[in-house]
Amino acid sequence: MEHALKEFIKQCDLAIKQEDFDTLMNYYTDDAILVIKPGMIARGKEEIKTAFIKIAKYFNNSLVPTQGEMIILEAGDTALVISQTFLEADKNDSEYSMERRATYVFKKSQQGEWICAIDNSYGTDLVNK
Amino acid sequence: MEHALKEFIKQCDLAIKQEDFDTLMNYYTDDAILVIKPGMIARGKEEIKTAFIKIAKYFNNSLVPTQGEMIILEAGDTALVISQTFLEADKNDSEYSMERRATYVFKKSQQGEWICAIDNSYGTDLVNK
Repeated sequence: MEHALKEFIKQCDLAIKQEDFDTLMNYYTDDAILVIKPGMIARGKEEIKTAFIKIAKYFNNSLVPTQGEMIILEAGDTALVISQTFLEADKNDSEYSMERRATYVFKKSQQGEWICAIDNSYGTDLVNK
Repeated sequence: MEHALKEFIKQCDLAIKQEDFDTLMNYYTDDAILVIKPGMIARGKEEIKTAFIKIAKYFNNSLVPTQGEMIILEAGDTALVISQTFLEADKNDSEYSMERRATYVFKKSQQGEWICAIDNSYGTDLVNK
């Protein structure tokens, strides 16, 4: 059986593809953050939803994220996922990389469900090589 | 004032330099994990302490970690730190990189103190480029 987090991230990617941002917001903690781009952060569900709507538009409403190789580092009720993230879209001039090595931090709720606290698709590219 | 996490990581680096692993273990959660090297994980304080003793020996008891550029992504009681990590040691033949872009996950205790849950100095290098 696949790790629950791998299934969960598939659901997130599907919601992004379908632009079902209300469902997507269920997958984030109330004080979650999303790195929109280096130096720009959305904080909380409202800002994150607004950011996803803008991101969808930027990618001509054709964004399809998928994950490649994935490492899940689980420590009790906290997990760090290191993942190859591929972005596909009908857009040839994106100024952002369509192949990333992302870092996602998840927390396990008291009901045993994972939700995303920190969504940083830029991974360690936020600091100098 | 520096971010509390930056100060905290300095204390961790100092404890590693001084090989004060009992103090160092106070800085980890009970179910913390340390990525010793790709594919090898220490889980819990006992395993992490043993790993640090072996790492110190591997580096001829001369290991000095320091941090360069650092990005702190804070979401409520959870934080992901992306950090340039430099390792110095009297050892010229290490098979591991001495310059890394690390990912550290911290949790804030009910007393408001940060402690390390996931210590992965290899960052996104755990998955394919």
